Amino acid sequence: MKNTEEQRRSFIKKLGILGSSGLIIPNLMMANTTNSAKNPLIIGRPKVLFFDVNETLLDLTAMKETVSEALEGRSELLSLWFTTMLQYSLVVSASGQYEHFGHIGAAALQMVAANHDIDISEEEARKVISKALQSLPAHPEVKEALEMLRADGYKLVSFTNSSNAGVKNQFEYAGLLEYFDERLSVEDVGKFKPFSETYQWASKKLGIAPAESMLVAAHGWDVAGAQWAGWRAAFIARPGKQLFPLAPTPEIVETDLLKIARKLVKL
Amino acid sequence: MKNTEEQRRSFIKKLGILGSSGLIIPNLMMANTTNSAKNPLIIGRPKVLFFDVNETLLDLTAMKETVSEALEGRSELLSLWFTTMLQYSLVVSASGQYEHFGHIGAAALQMVAANHDIDISEEEARKVISKALQSLPAHPEVKEALEMLRADGYKLVSFTNSSNAGVKNQFEYAGLLEYFDERLSVEDVGKFKPFSETYQWASKKLGIAPAESMLVAAHGWDVAGAQWAGWRAAFIARPGKQLFPLAPTPEIVETDLLKIARKLVKL
Repeated sequence: MKNTEEQRRSFIKKLGILGSSGLIIPNLMMANTTNSAKNPLIIGRPKVLFFDVNETLLDLTAMKETVSEALEGRSELLSLWFTTMLQYSLVVSASGQYEHFGHIGAAALQMVAANHDIDISEEEARKVISKALQSLPAHPEVKEALEMLRADGYKLVSFTNSSNAGVKNQFEYAGLLEYFDERLSVEDVGKFKPFSETYQWASKKLGIAPAESMLVAAHGWDVAGAQWAGWRAAFIARPGKQLFPLAPTPEIVETDLLKIARKLVKL
Repeated sequence: MKNTEEQRRSFIKKLGILGSSGLIIPNLMMANTTNSAKNPLIIGRPKVLFFDVNETLLDLTAMKETVSEALEGRSELLSLWFTTMLQYSLVVSASGQYEHFGHIGAAALQMVAANHDIDISEEEARKVISKALQSLPAHPEVKEALEMLRADGYKLVSFTNSSNAGVKNQFEYAGLLEYFDERLSVEDVGKFKPFSETYQWASKKLGIAPAESMLVAAHGWDVAGAQWAGWRAAFIARPGKQLFPLAPTPEIVETDLLKIARKLVKL
């Protein structure tokens, strides 16, 4: 694994010295390197852009207020609740089980609440999470960025841990339905991101190779998982979001989606 | 999965009406039920007791002080750091990768620190975590409980996400080396708990069936994963520790290891 990681890092470095538009690399330039031999498709334009949804496209600030109310105003517990939800989504998948992401979020809310002597029933927790997840606005730059990418000929697909019904409601609320060629949910593969199988299933579903797929996400774990599954990745470094230091660095890192879109249209 | 879960819950309920020593169920009593047909071995005494280590046997209070110092005294971030470490251990395994648990803990520390404008280098983070993990005392009741179980003929095995060298150092510091017949680390299977494969590997290593294995742990995710892998489980409800509401309820739940040991010797 170390070797692959070092190769990728060195690959990224090589891209770096070509300047800010350095992602446009003619096949010829890479023809004699180990990287191009091993990853002949990791250059040029990806065939499909896959977008994570929660936090990547949708702004969770409003959700945090709803959840904070359920936690009796203890807003310092919100990051812990969200991380616990992510941890337990993986616990469930690692055990070969499946539950809706919202139900796992509700269970995580009950656990964090109980640890602080706050009692929330399963029914109440599910109501809070469901309402909160389905009333999220898009981040301010998202529509312009998606419009730019569509106009430039990119195929755009959403790819989320939320359920199929959940993401449809989310996109209806946020006005994002029309921007995507397809909506994919891990519900159909029964396993959460960042399991390698989920990315492999998604690229297969679109009829492309992993190396022709690019994930755009605001989560370190998501871009790490995508890259370890052979995908390309772009990371939105939104406030409070960090790359995982032990994973390969994604080829694009920017602070919002519009900046990423501007780089992508140059490919 | 729902069905299995309901069967298990109904099974636990059935145990419940037999009173506090209700785990001693003659084969005859269960012979005609669906549960005994499906799980013929989930009664009587387990052949091996597997013990989780961090938080289950070792008291992490001292670690929290060391880590809190590295986070410039922001002790409210400790639970977030620990949960992030657990989340990323699963991210790594879900992607088919492996890193030492301590290295993942250090990376999680860097991420949580960076989110609060605290800069910690990889080297510094690894030093902090390594030192902290290897200077933990046993919880006060642990030695008496392990002694009681050994004297009663139980085979005791430690089973941890820490590395082989790591857990050896931990046990030397805490004076626990002599209590265990074997020490198992997920390092040898290259995947973290609660992946089903880790439990299956551990019971196979001891030459027993999953249903003859019992995990004793203070983590909801660990007992959930063990039970979903076909093991029996006992949960230590230490302060701040919660069962995962969507998982089967373990057959023994007590607030410390001595209380669990007293139930186990009655089996």
